[in-house]
Amino acid sequence: MSEQMTPKGHDELEVARMEKELRYISAIIKHNGRKILKNYTITPPQFIALQWLFEHGDMTIGDLSNKMFLAFSTTTDLVDRMENNNLVKRLRDDKDRRVVRIHLLSEGERVIEEVIHKRTAYLNAVLSDFDKEEVIQFSHLLTKLHEAMNKDSLKD
Amino acid sequence: MSEQMTPKGHDELEVARMEKELRYISAIIKHNGRKILKNYTITPPQFIALQWLFEHGDMTIGDLSNKMFLAFSTTTDLVDRMENNNLVKRLRDDKDRRVVRIHLLSEGERVIEEVIHKRTAYLNAVLSDFDKEEVIQFSHLLTKLHEAMNKDSLKD
Repeated sequence: MSEQMTPKGHDELEVARMEKELRYISAIIKHNGRKILKNYTITPPQFIALQWLFEHGDMTIGDLSNKMFLAFSTTTDLVDRMENNNLVKRLRDDKDRRVVRIHLLSEGERVIEEVIHKRTAYLNAVLSDFDKEEVIQFSHLLTKLHEAMNKDSLKD
Repeated sequence: MSEQMTPKGHDELEVARMEKELRYISAIIKHNGRKILKNYTITPPQFIALQWLFEHGDMTIGDLSNKMFLAFSTTTDLVDRMENNNLVKRLRDDKDRRVVRIHLLSEGERVIEEVIHKRTAYLNAVLSDFDKEEVIQFSHLLTKLHEAMNKDSLKD
């Protein structure tokens, strides 16, 4: 077999280091995210749901379940609670009345914008020792990794 | 005030993009990590505890609680269950008998090594479109971010 046909991947040690750093960074971001949410009435899963609706627009419960890797029934309960708190509402599709989409309400938008803003402010503070070029390069590499992960997940 | 005294931070849009990418990447890594754990008897918090003991050595329950951002009692329960499953054992300090440290047993080490290896293999596969230089640069930026986050957390 030619070398091209047997991609051995990157240096194990380098990738192991990356895996480790991503693992620790994710844990710190999660912890910091929870600290930010303490000033709000939403829970971590509600934050994730609001994030999807805010950044990707109205979604059916099925779509939201898939994006959040949650069971349909769990997502339904989540949406019920957010609807009770006036963060979202269910909207019936004009063209196909059988389709119901979850729509972000102004209070939901206000909360998610504030929380994301605080997360960004935290990251900006933490990046104070990075120069401008590093931030641009970092952002580019993260976008590329995210795209590669999305592409990989389609293989399942 | 001079410009030096008023650090305005990086471009908001660039950092907002980074925050968003880190958020989505963390979610995918979390989901993939859970899929890997399905083949093992350990839970996600047990994975985190084993990770700390594997990568940082024996620790008291107090240290482990701090690292995991968990209550002392929650960590005690976690350690009890891992001790019952022969993943770890409690060791009394030779010099100060009042100090008890959690020590990784061979079965715990086997499991954590396997799980981390599978996580690294996933990352290596996902990085197939990255060239060698990008991986080295990425790894360096993640290490730098992790260090900056650790430094920031000391301010609390």
